[in-house]
Amino acid sequence: MPLVRVTNFAISLDGYGAGEPQSLEAPFGHAGMKLHEWRFATWRPGAPNGVDALFGRQYDVGFGAEIMGANKFGPPGWQDDPDWRGWWGEDPPFHTPTYVLTHRPREPLEMEGGTTFHFLSTSPADALAIAQEAAGDLDVRIGGGATTVRTFVAAGLVDHLHLAMVPLVLGRGTLLWEGLEGLEEQFHIESVVAPSGVVHLSLTRRSPDA
Amino acid sequence: MPLVRVTNFAISLDGYGAGEPQSLEAPFGHAGMKLHEWRFATWRPGAPNGVDALFGRQYDVGFGAEIMGANKFGPPGWQDDPDWRGWWGEDPPFHTPTYVLTHRPREPLEMEGGTTFHFLSTSPADALAIAQEAAGDLDVRIGGGATTVRTFVAAGLVDHLHLAMVPLVLGRGTLLWEGLEGLEEQFHIESVVAPSGVVHLSLTRRSPDA
Repeated sequence: MPLVRVTNFAISLDGYGAGEPQSLEAPFGHAGMKLHEWRFATWRPGAPNGVDALFGRQYDVGFGAEIMGANKFGPPGWQDDPDWRGWWGEDPPFHTPTYVLTHRPREPLEMEGGTTFHFLSTSPADALAIAQEAAGDLDVRIGGGATTVRTFVAAGLVDHLHLAMVPLVLGRGTLLWEGLEGLEEQFHIESVVAPSGVVHLSLTRRSPDA
Repeated sequence: MPLVRVTNFAISLDGYGAGEPQSLEAPFGHAGMKLHEWRFATWRPGAPNGVDALFGRQYDVGFGAEIMGANKFGPPGWQDDPDWRGWWGEDPPFHTPTYVLTHRPREPLEMEGGTTFHFLSTSPADALAIAQEAAGDLDVRIGGGATTVRTFVAAGLVDHLHLAMVPLVLGRGTLLWEGLEGLEEQFHIESVVAPSGVVHLSLTRRSPDA
């Protein structure tokens, strides 16, 4: 049975998934790339094949669709730019149908490498049904940002969450945890620390029978 | 050289050091004792002598004084009760001079087992100078709650912090991280996960020369 998963979602110790203010020049605001450096490090030649690499690779396998929020697709105001095609160039790293939640949908964008961006103005549950249909036997990834992740988690739509807690305090930005009181009752939570200092949290939805 | 330390300060994944509302019946608000169960578990007969126990014992050794905030000493309004003597009975677990920061100081309370409560209406730095004088060659513990810890950390008065991050999401209460943006620039941060699921964070102030 295919799952709905969040993988490699990086947060600070104080729970921010991005800094502020977000802009074309600073997609993650004052956080810069600090939340993601651990993962880039796993892509360098000769990088250790350890905990960070293993968690990082979860991103690449088994997904047939992604759902992301409008704030992940572009800087504030991208909806006013008919030529905006996302941050990732002509060959984005999704390689599947990718659903962008926005109140101002536009025509699909077919990119190279298998990524097609579809723009949806629907509820999370309806978007998920569409993405699951497209994904077939494969999983759907909830790709972020923090607001989108917590909206899907709060709605009970997510089976697995992998969070990478990076040892820094951002102080401001977009919070992941808001509205998730008592999450431990719904999810088993397991943690491991990588030598990089990143704490990888694996949250697995508890079976209703357990 | 004696240090200023925070030990065994428990927080939720979302950074709360206590829930809400705090009262005589619920000192930690809706968190109950959930943030502290890992530590109680180390006190039971036959408990494993492992990571949780080792970190827990840091609390007991090397301190000559403690400083705590008014909210740790009693429930809201304790200042109106001349007979309030703290939560801990006649033999509190501090066994040293213990300085309670309050805008309404009262006469010192000499308890059993070496604890004397002193009540100070001073700045954090002045309170620390008084506590250090009393502690002599020993360390001073900043005992909490979250507001007191972050006030002392933000003022640059703390050398070591041990935080025990418990795998639960409280959603509301007293936040530790507020105002601590960029803490990783001042502190080396090391983490380890105990089999209980608690993530122990050891923050050590960086040397100015490093």
